[in-house]
Amino acid sequence: MSESIIIVGRKPVLEALKASGKVDVVFFLKGIRGELLKEISELAANRKISVLEVDQRKFDTLSKGAETTQGVAAKIQAFQTWSLQEVITYSLRRNKLLLALDSVQDPQNLGAIIRTAECAGVDGIITTVHNSAPLSMTAFKTSAGAAAYMKICEVNNLVTAMEECKKAGFWSLGTALDEKKHSPKIDYNLPLLIVSGNEEKGLRRLVKVNCDFLITIPMLGEIQSLNVSVATGVILFNTLRERGAW
Amino acid sequence: MSESIIIVGRKPVLEALKASGKVDVVFFLKGIRGELLKEISELAANRKISVLEVDQRKFDTLSKGAETTQGVAAKIQAFQTWSLQEVITYSLRRNKLLLALDSVQDPQNLGAIIRTAECAGVDGIITTVHNSAPLSMTAFKTSAGAAAYMKICEVNNLVTAMEECKKAGFWSLGTALDEKKHSPKIDYNLPLLIVSGNEEKGLRRLVKVNCDFLITIPMLGEIQSLNVSVATGVILFNTLRERGAW
Repeated sequence: MSESIIIVGRKPVLEALKASGKVDVVFFLKGIRGELLKEISELAANRKISVLEVDQRKFDTLSKGAETTQGVAAKIQAFQTWSLQEVITYSLRRNKLLLALDSVQDPQNLGAIIRTAECAGVDGIITTVHNSAPLSMTAFKTSAGAAAYMKICEVNNLVTAMEECKKAGFWSLGTALDEKKHSPKIDYNLPLLIVSGNEEKGLRRLVKVNCDFLITIPMLGEIQSLNVSVATGVILFNTLRERGAW
Repeated sequence: MSESIIIVGRKPVLEALKASGKVDVVFFLKGIRGELLKEISELAANRKISVLEVDQRKFDTLSKGAETTQGVAAKIQAFQTWSLQEVITYSLRRNKLLLALDSVQDPQNLGAIIRTAECAGVDGIITTVHNSAPLSMTAFKTSAGAAAYMKICEVNNLVTAMEECKKAGFWSLGTALDEKKHSPKIDYNLPLLIVSGNEEKGLRRLVKVNCDFLITIPMLGEIQSLNVSVATGVILFNTLRERGAW
């Protein structure tokens, strides 16, 4: 599936241009000045992508719903999605690190997770068609452009997808919210599927019982809830640490 | 310094009520229903804090500038700040873990960092009076209420404050953006001052040279920028991991 969406903001548009073959056309609001515009224009020219100057009315219509456009927008083939088998095969050749999202609801959290995952070298993200934040403009923008690089796979049934990953050699590591302390001995060099859950409820029961390992991030304060993108970042970079990357 | 500010949102107000002695009065928009209201009313009653029902016009005036109020607001003594010596003394008795922020600009990032730090058991946050995001309503709200629990210290000169911490036995660990790999041998059981830098530029030169250790989070993707609250979370929870907390 590859829908066209409009993305806004200078950095997101620049990142989308750097990623290959996704931008249909770039829009500049007439008269804008400032940083990154030259870089955007040159990159677009190199890739033979049109840059159209449009007036305020047209620009507002294009960027409908967006808060801070910085006078730049682009029409892109957003979030090219991949089949589960493609993502698995790609990951086994690369970092052997996948991320599954069980019902993450907030598009900003989704975007923040994509950004964090991309920085951590995650090869692909598996999310569900239903009960998950849509692959929207908000998610793309919050990802700071990382969405343009990330291989995303939408599945109907996350448990079935986890089983497919398992057959291919992946071990699944779920983030639990329980107070009971989990710090299992895990061989982090195995192909790993990290599983993050819903903002409020964590992992669903069936997803949880299908995880090979569960790990709990300790909560030492009064507030018992880490933001899901921070929690995912902590688990991902801990994995890299265990793998000796830092 | 203790200014009154208005906070909005059900969860932030509930968290502020749970923290001691900070809420002056709670406001409900007339006719609201739904989750958490009963809990808020009961907790306010226990603490002998008034709950006022106000009409839409009054409520809008109160919550001016806020996006999602969920019909609940409160006037609080926001961000009670502490002296550096108070924060140091408190931390030495508790988790021996402090966080310094060098020119973090975005109030949402500040709020997210406070939330993350509170979850990680950070005893206090040192920030600068100038060139830093203000201790605003936005920061409070993004902190998901954690700001009500966090001891914050505003200093004029971060380097001088770092030296004070050092005299008291703290070792400072800065997060570097350099590509050069840092993974120093650190005794994480020492009293530690974690230092996080500006969103774009990282640590200022003088702050950096005053750090006892620098650590770099590896960037394995195409996007070279982790959000500062995620990066801070990664370093803080890595510290807890090294301390054996998980």
